[in-house]
Amino acid sequence: MAAGFLAPLPVLTGLLVILCVGRWVEGGKVLVVPMDGSHWLSMKKAVQKLHARGHQMVVVSPESNMHIKEEDFFTLTTYATPYTQEEFDRFLLGQSYLVFQRMSFLKTFLKTMEGLKTAALIFQRSCESLMHNKNLIRHLNASSFDVVLTDPVYPCGAIMARYLSLPSVFFLRNIPCDLESEGTQCPNPSSYIPRLLTRNSDHMTFLQRVKNMLYPLALKYFCHFSFTPYESLASELLQREKDVTVQELMGSASIWLLKGDFVKDYSRPIMPSMVFVGGINCASKNPLSKEFEAYVNASGEHGIVVFSLGSMVSDIPEKKAMEIADALGKIPQTVLWRYTGTPPPNLSKNTILVKWLPQNDLLGHPKARAFITHSGSHGIYEGICNGVPMVMLPLFGDQMDNAKRMETRGAGVTLNVLEMTSEDLANALKAVITDKSYKENIMHLSRLHKDRPIEPLDLAVFWVEFVMRHKGAPHLRPAAHDLTWYQYHSLDVIGFLLAVVLGVVFITYKCCAFGCRKCFGKKGRVKKSHKSKAH
Amino acid sequence: MAAGFLAPLPVLTGLLVILCVGRWVEGGKVLVVPMDGSHWLSMKKAVQKLHARGHQMVVVSPESNMHIKEEDFFTLTTYATPYTQEEFDRFLLGQSYLVFQRMSFLKTFLKTMEGLKTAALIFQRSCESLMHNKNLIRHLNASSFDVVLTDPVYPCGAIMARYLSLPSVFFLRNIPCDLESEGTQCPNPSSYIPRLLTRNSDHMTFLQRVKNMLYPLALKYFCHFSFTPYESLASELLQREKDVTVQELMGSASIWLLKGDFVKDYSRPIMPSMVFVGGINCASKNPLSKEFEAYVNASGEHGIVVFSLGSMVSDIPEKKAMEIADALGKIPQTVLWRYTGTPPPNLSKNTILVKWLPQNDLLGHPKARAFITHSGSHGIYEGICNGVPMVMLPLFGDQMDNAKRMETRGAGVTLNVLEMTSEDLANALKAVITDKSYKENIMHLSRLHKDRPIEPLDLAVFWVEFVMRHKGAPHLRPAAHDLTWYQYHSLDVIGFLLAVVLGVVFITYKCCAFGCRKCFGKKGRVKKSHKSKAH
Repeated sequence: MAAGFLAPLPVLTGLLVILCVGRWVEGGKVLVVPMDGSHWLSMKKAVQKLHARGHQMVVVSPESNMHIKEEDFFTLTTYATPYTQEEFDRFLLGQSYLVFQRMSFLKTFLKTMEGLKTAALIFQRSCESLMHNKNLIRHLNASSFDVVLTDPVYPCGAIMARYLSLPSVFFLRNIPCDLESEGTQCPNPSSYIPRLLTRNSDHMTFLQRVKNMLYPLALKYFCHFSFTPYESLASELLQREKDVTVQELMGSASIWLLKGDFVKDYSRPIMPSMVFVGGINCASKNPLSKEFEAYVNASGEHGIVVFSLGSMVSDIPEKKAMEIADALGKIPQTVLWRYTGTPPPNLSKNTILVKWLPQNDLLGHPKARAFITHSGSHGIYEGICNGVPMVMLPLFGDQMDNAKRMETRGAGVTLNVLEMTSEDLANALKAVITDKSYKENIMHLSRLHKDRPIEPLDLAVFWVEFVMRHKGAPHLRPAAHDLTWYQYHSLDVIGFLLAVVLGVVFITYKCCAFGCRKCFGKKGRVKKSHKSKAH
Repeated sequence: MAAGFLAPLPVLTGLLVILCVGRWVEGGKVLVVPMDGSHWLSMKKAVQKLHARGHQMVVVSPESNMHIKEEDFFTLTTYATPYTQEEFDRFLLGQSYLVFQRMSFLKTFLKTMEGLKTAALIFQRSCESLMHNKNLIRHLNASSFDVVLTDPVYPCGAIMARYLSLPSVFFLRNIPCDLESEGTQCPNPSSYIPRLLTRNSDHMTFLQRVKNMLYPLALKYFCHFSFTPYESLASELLQREKDVTVQELMGSASIWLLKGDFVKDYSRPIMPSMVFVGGINCASKNPLSKEFEAYVNASGEHGIVVFSLGSMVSDIPEKKAMEIADALGKIPQTVLWRYTGTPPPNLSKNTILVKWLPQNDLLGHPKARAFITHSGSHGIYEGICNGVPMVMLPLFGDQMDNAKRMETRGAGVTLNVLEMTSEDLANALKAVITDKSYKENIMHLSRLHKDRPIEPLDLAVFWVEFVMRHKGAPHLRPAAHDLTWYQYHSLDVIGFLLAVVLGVVFITYKCCAFGCRKCFGKKGRVKKSHKSKAH
């Protein structure tokens, strides 16, 4: 009888999805060109949901990659690359170890640049391998896709969409050098919008605003070697008279699904084609496995601390690991630490090392007291969604900025992973667990973040389907795309009006001067001539 | 049995509303300070929905008004005004007749200005009467409202919210002099965002861009006499050290519910506190009454044309009415014309005059072939929602701009109501009815407009309740509000960096010059002294 009562539930759920998400579309075909690493982990959730809504999902990925593996909700199409999986893994491990090495500023800068250049080259080679793989491209061309879903940090998907004449949806956290602003034509005042890597908040001192203006100039060099090679690749493939620019590739998206919101990030101008889906990774929640359930139950009244440095870093140098292990031993909570390296010899009984942990599910448990995170945007959102105060150990990229945002909102403490002592970490943990303000602040953020008219995953799905239904979203494309920079800023109009005003002033002055001469000039001359005569 | 099957429907509907609109809030109290005229007609729908969701709605209105009358879904609280209903009605009738008078440009301008000044004075006196009504203010203060819902075109609600220390939600179509941009700190480039009354589209020629820059300067005068008086009223009431500015009043809203979207309007920068609810007035649909059903059925295969010049104009001068009646007689469709004046003697059999018509319901009927409208924003949205091509006779305000938008999208034809002949109107009607492109274009707009993740009315209700739940939305307020204009544009930072660069160049030049003098100077002097000696 109970089963009978529940029988209409799937139908009802379907009805709810249709009513909440918009109208159903007949099963379409989506070509996914993802960015590897943690970028893929959240895009995967959108891919899974789109598959569940009846669309055929085809993911195109290089053979050698980090996280893009076969799953039952998409067809994986791989292509050969000029580097092996082993070479790729070795490069990644080297990069993650680099973070923990104490070096002079210059050496750190040079090593980082070297790493970034190698990474850029790897992705560039990968894109060339894909676009020159004639069989695969022919197959994709014949597959009649409706839309390309891609992360523009790896602009290969944008080139592919242009090549296959398909509308595209960009899915990303952010992209350096304000390329998203150029792509969407979104105003981006430097005076209150903190720039990538500056660690500024939206309220800046004068010197912070100077820094905010100078940092993007420094990043231009990085963007030059990261993105410019795609221009020649696109120009070659699209065989256009004029060379294709990165700005043009970025401007080709119909919709930008941005993994942010105005609870984590600061309020700022946006464009109608920008859709905010921050917290999309918090959507799926599962009950804990028996193993983790046992750990959590055994933690008693003190509860647990969840510790992970993200999908890129699961192993750290022994000395740093020992310092951390020492700090973790000083708190009464049970610590679940995602760590794949050699266990530090001083590991306390309260610390359990695991090769993988269900981060979002553990943070969602009422016994979660604190979260030690590298403050990647996924982790930060899982902290916000579940209202767990954070100790943040940012390692690279936008992690410093994320940590700064949470710190200014009183939802956590940031530590420098290289400089912190065991004591610092223990004190930070004790602070976020015992000082009620951290819990109150993160709960306030959590309430704001979760109070929205539609779930971010549903919103992402809606807009991908919208682009499929209407073959793009040209009505959301601002006319600014068709203006030159001086037209956009109305410099020609201002120049013209100034010229008119100056012209009028000049003519008026000349007329007055002429009038004056006519009226008084003769008198003057008469007087003068009188004078001369007198002489 | 059928009834038994349908019994859980209300519960299910409630569940759907909760799931789609967000979480339920306990019955709150909303103070509504509306703008009269057609502005109130769409706000009323939001008031009705909020009432249906269990909130107590109190509407404050002057005794003498146009459309704000008692209804069962709100408590109407009126206050005495220094003008009578008769005087108010006489003024309105005079204004609507003015539209149809042929006058020289100068006379039209002066008469319009005179009318606008009188209207501004009426609203200003009304606001003074409200704010100086001590008993009423005391009563409102004691009523513990959660939020003020108001149209900032009548800034009295914004002053009231500040006076009662309540968060406010603004509900509007637009406001002259870019006050919404100042209030939200939204960038507003003049190069592609057409300004009020310019009839420009988003793609402008050079001269149109010049016009786009000059028009707002002309409107400043209008805003000066319309809005400045509220500054002194607010300063007096709020008793602040510094005078309250209009910009400050506009910047006080937590959320701006804007009756627009990017199907009717052009894509442009927006802010996170701006929520677009264009088409909110299309929400409620009812079956036609027997009277109208009979008219529609009798129209046969040719169908009907719906004709209304909006809630402000239902009577027009006889000569113009006869011209129109003549044109309407030339088409085979049945015309339903909302008209309260003396019937024109040449009225054809196919034209039926009615004192009121269910515009949205008639346009929603499959037999609706065309819509003759003054192109007010409500009418335009009803045309879009129902996919009915339009013949637009804009009369005043933003109606010219609305008509231009629809015309550039190929969804209708615009005529100058003063200059058009009977032939022009008949031809325009025949064109939009027989030329399939108009129907195709409006249907395209209709599909785009209706394809959204959440209905505009639900979205409006969600955000009003959001502000009630969180006592505002400070996280959506950009830090730009705390910057001066030169800080906002980074002029101080640019100046500083220029000074540094020039300083470095100057010092380098001086050092080089000094170095050169040191190296070569002596030789030079030596040579010189040699030369002198030689002399």
